[in-house]
Amino acid sequence: MVQTRFNDRKAFQNLNRLSKNLNEDKFHLKHMIQDKKRLENFSLKFDGFFYDFSKQRIDDRVMEELLNLARQAEAKKKFSQMVSGEIVNITENRAALHTAARGFIPDPANLTDMDVLSEINRVNSQIKEFSAKIHNSQIRSDSGKPFTDAVVIGIGGSYLGCEFVYTALKHCIEPKIKLHFLSNVDIDNFGQVIKTINPETCLWIVISKSYTTTETMANLKQVLLFLKNNKLDPSSHLVTVTAKGSPGDDPANKVLDSFHMFDFIGGRYSVTSAVGGLPLSLAFGFDIFTRFLKGCHAMDLHAVNAPEKQNIPLISALISIWNSNFLHYPAQAIIPYCSALSKLAPHVQQLYMESLGKGVTFDGNLIDYKTGIIIFGEPGTNAQHSFFQLAHQGSPFPVEFIGVVTPVYNKDQAGSNGVYNHQELWANMIAQAKALAMGKDDDNKAKYFTGNRPSSTLVINNLTPESIGMLLAFYEARTVYEGFILGINPFDQFGVELGKILASQIRDHIKQKNTDETYTFDSFDPATKFYLDTLFNGSL
Amino acid sequence: MVQTRFNDRKAFQNLNRLSKNLNEDKFHLKHMIQDKKRLENFSLKFDGFFYDFSKQRIDDRVMEELLNLARQAEAKKKFSQMVSGEIVNITENRAALHTAARGFIPDPANLTDMDVLSEINRVNSQIKEFSAKIHNSQIRSDSGKPFTDAVVIGIGGSYLGCEFVYTALKHCIEPKIKLHFLSNVDIDNFGQVIKTINPETCLWIVISKSYTTTETMANLKQVLLFLKNNKLDPSSHLVTVTAKGSPGDDPANKVLDSFHMFDFIGGRYSVTSAVGGLPLSLAFGFDIFTRFLKGCHAMDLHAVNAPEKQNIPLISALISIWNSNFLHYPAQAIIPYCSALSKLAPHVQQLYMESLGKGVTFDGNLIDYKTGIIIFGEPGTNAQHSFFQLAHQGSPFPVEFIGVVTPVYNKDQAGSNGVYNHQELWANMIAQAKALAMGKDDDNKAKYFTGNRPSSTLVINNLTPESIGMLLAFYEARTVYEGFILGINPFDQFGVELGKILASQIRDHIKQKNTDETYTFDSFDPATKFYLDTLFNGSL
Repeated sequence: MVQTRFNDRKAFQNLNRLSKNLNEDKFHLKHMIQDKKRLENFSLKFDGFFYDFSKQRIDDRVMEELLNLARQAEAKKKFSQMVSGEIVNITENRAALHTAARGFIPDPANLTDMDVLSEINRVNSQIKEFSAKIHNSQIRSDSGKPFTDAVVIGIGGSYLGCEFVYTALKHCIEPKIKLHFLSNVDIDNFGQVIKTINPETCLWIVISKSYTTTETMANLKQVLLFLKNNKLDPSSHLVTVTAKGSPGDDPANKVLDSFHMFDFIGGRYSVTSAVGGLPLSLAFGFDIFTRFLKGCHAMDLHAVNAPEKQNIPLISALISIWNSNFLHYPAQAIIPYCSALSKLAPHVQQLYMESLGKGVTFDGNLIDYKTGIIIFGEPGTNAQHSFFQLAHQGSPFPVEFIGVVTPVYNKDQAGSNGVYNHQELWANMIAQAKALAMGKDDDNKAKYFTGNRPSSTLVINNLTPESIGMLLAFYEARTVYEGFILGINPFDQFGVELGKILASQIRDHIKQKNTDETYTFDSFDPATKFYLDTLFNGSL
Repeated sequence: MVQTRFNDRKAFQNLNRLSKNLNEDKFHLKHMIQDKKRLENFSLKFDGFFYDFSKQRIDDRVMEELLNLARQAEAKKKFSQMVSGEIVNITENRAALHTAARGFIPDPANLTDMDVLSEINRVNSQIKEFSAKIHNSQIRSDSGKPFTDAVVIGIGGSYLGCEFVYTALKHCIEPKIKLHFLSNVDIDNFGQVIKTINPETCLWIVISKSYTTTETMANLKQVLLFLKNNKLDPSSHLVTVTAKGSPGDDPANKVLDSFHMFDFIGGRYSVTSAVGGLPLSLAFGFDIFTRFLKGCHAMDLHAVNAPEKQNIPLISALISIWNSNFLHYPAQAIIPYCSALSKLAPHVQQLYMESLGKGVTFDGNLIDYKTGIIIFGEPGTNAQHSFFQLAHQGSPFPVEFIGVVTPVYNKDQAGSNGVYNHQELWANMIAQAKALAMGKDDDNKAKYFTGNRPSSTLVINNLTPESIGMLLAFYEARTVYEGFILGINPFDQFGVELGKILASQIRDHIKQKNTDETYTFDSFDPATKFYLDTLFNGSL
């Protein structure tokens, strides 16, 4: 697949020129947002999902060229190819069919190697049945007691998305089974988790596609020892989510049940597969998980079908590219004015930075333009009292505000200063976007605000499984669109390999030292030797 | 105080020149770290606190000029002035005496306006007595039951530092009183907190210097309503941490007790004052808090006394300046290979970005150089499975690794691949720093790593109150040093004011609408009107 490079496209050149003019005062946001039609012209709504980009540093000409950029990259065509099961992850020779996990493939007959939808349906039926049996106590622990808690053992894509959705939904739905997460190989992560559960009523969900992920296997072994010490049979306390035929799928290793994951769904896009499906169905019931999938599916249909000009994930991908490649902002903050969405930023941080932090094009050439930026964020108003000083007066970065129209809590409210807490929250969200855009002059330069700092605002109506699904699928689609337009592969992650190789070399030496205390680390460079000696000495 | 501007200093010019040469291949980190003396020459140790900057893109000449920069800025002199109680926060006409909270003022007789140390000692004695009475059940709740939980109501500096220290220490010490945090004005934050506590055994700690912080007051009112609904007397369930004479210190508002905070300690530097002292003493006992203070004090003494060349906070501030102002990295990641330190990055994010994200110099001139960068981070190895793809192959950013030699968990360990989990953790930490520095060539450009990506490594021996104290005081001192060298005020935060003013205007209109439903938002711009109408409609 030979492509025109991103920065050789005609639209790129035009956008570069347009960005140079942008320093003229008339393009300051404080002027641009005076236009009465500004919000109308620079916002989109779809099915209870609202995206306001009126406070981005764009005008009609920029928007038109950005859309040209998407057209020249054939972004929509590639997105269609993705949902149809073509091999879009070319470096790994795989499809990227996370959208099929929501039950959607335009023409499933075209997929020759396996019947993707019936495989997905099979796993979902299995999840439905298993979680129902846990909830009605048909399946009980080795102690004979019903399960009350489940620990998800997984890292990265086997963890962050599920944690985001669980955290959001538990604000509105009381969990039937409480979830905990054991991700880090840090033994103190294990030490903390076991303080919070009762081993007799705890299920352990091991999630690893290959069933060789170092951290997950190390934690599994620690859990097996823990079960043994508590005289509990692992085959009554463990389930696995793993690829068909992996060691975790081996009938010789008896477990309660195994759920398959597929190589056509990558880790960071896997929340809607069994990776999220099993833990979330255990927590809230399979019907809630199904409602969540419906929300994702609605956004998928929008992402694949809406014309460029109305396509929210596509437009937001273009704006992200505009901000990073033309206006040279190095980061974007995601600030949900909603405590329930506190784990959204860490999830998107992985999704985005792992997908787009690439050094080569789709066709394997080194890149000389910007790909991927830093994503970080905390909920507002908390962020206002943390790092917004920098946002207003230090080096600028674009902000994505997220608002939820109706909160979950619906009992007695006291109010303060004549407004309710949720109103106070929204007053702040609205004010921050305005303050960043407008700025303020002041003779006292310590109180002077440059303004002209861009932001978007996303709004959903409420915290339902459907709207959380839309939010998840929105960020997935936007990430994929951005990859396609930048001409990079948003599905591989070769950048994590070198660290693994070096860690494995160091591990081999530690292993030798563990069996032979006279072994030395002299073959290493002085720094590596110093750290390993310190580790074995137990002190600096 | 008229100063030479940061970028007019001689050392600045020299550093600028040195940075230009740095693209020569011989300065690639893979070559620089081959020097057998590299670690020895570019690392510092003090009292169980180790700082390795050998994988930073510096050499002797750069280091010498950086030290000149510190000398020309009289950084150490200013630091001494700070700990001596001079008015270093000139825009707010205040001292910055967080170090005095650790019992340290070189010459207290010089302080004319109040006896700082005896005031601090008085509050600490009060904390000691109060927490002891809670622990031995001399003070009980209105229900007659002993207290089991406490909710900290505070935001920003009244919350993040305490949360960091609490999270770290609860890995090694079982809390006597469990802490919870109610920070966000989001009513769903309140809704979640009350699910986790029993109102009959819960103490509420209201932290606000002025006792007017919008979020904290709104949450307080909500809590008062909650106590009333539960038929509990607020005067038996509330304590306040606030300035002398504030509404929270008014004897007319009966509370269990009030603890003073002082205007010579700013919010983000206040963990060692009553802001952290009361909750942490309730959680772990006053003796543990005292040990924590000792760790801070040890680092304070080092920061004020160690010569430039051996001064860890000063050197690390210089390296941060080198990376942002000369090598133009826009961010820094803080990656503790330690789950217990999971809340360190959010705390440092506030401390650093609010202190250094400034637009004016100390003497009130607009700035034309970089001040403040983005701080973000997650624990390793989790971060490796999240955003390290970008760190290795996308746009580079410096990383600060943090290692703890001995973990807390000391029971049975299973091990995996011939190594224990903590060894695996360290193997990864060592490998990541190496991989970032070295890079790797590969004909397959998807597997090519540029390397030359800088990192530092901090090591502490173990998770004790003392070492957590050193870590906290290290980041405080480094932030202050960076501000002094950059010629900005690290103690004010005028950048948060504009948003507050605009929120207050919007609040006034919401208030009117709450009492008169025919009231319209027509006087606002269309975007603000749209958001407020949506909020009142309850739907998009």
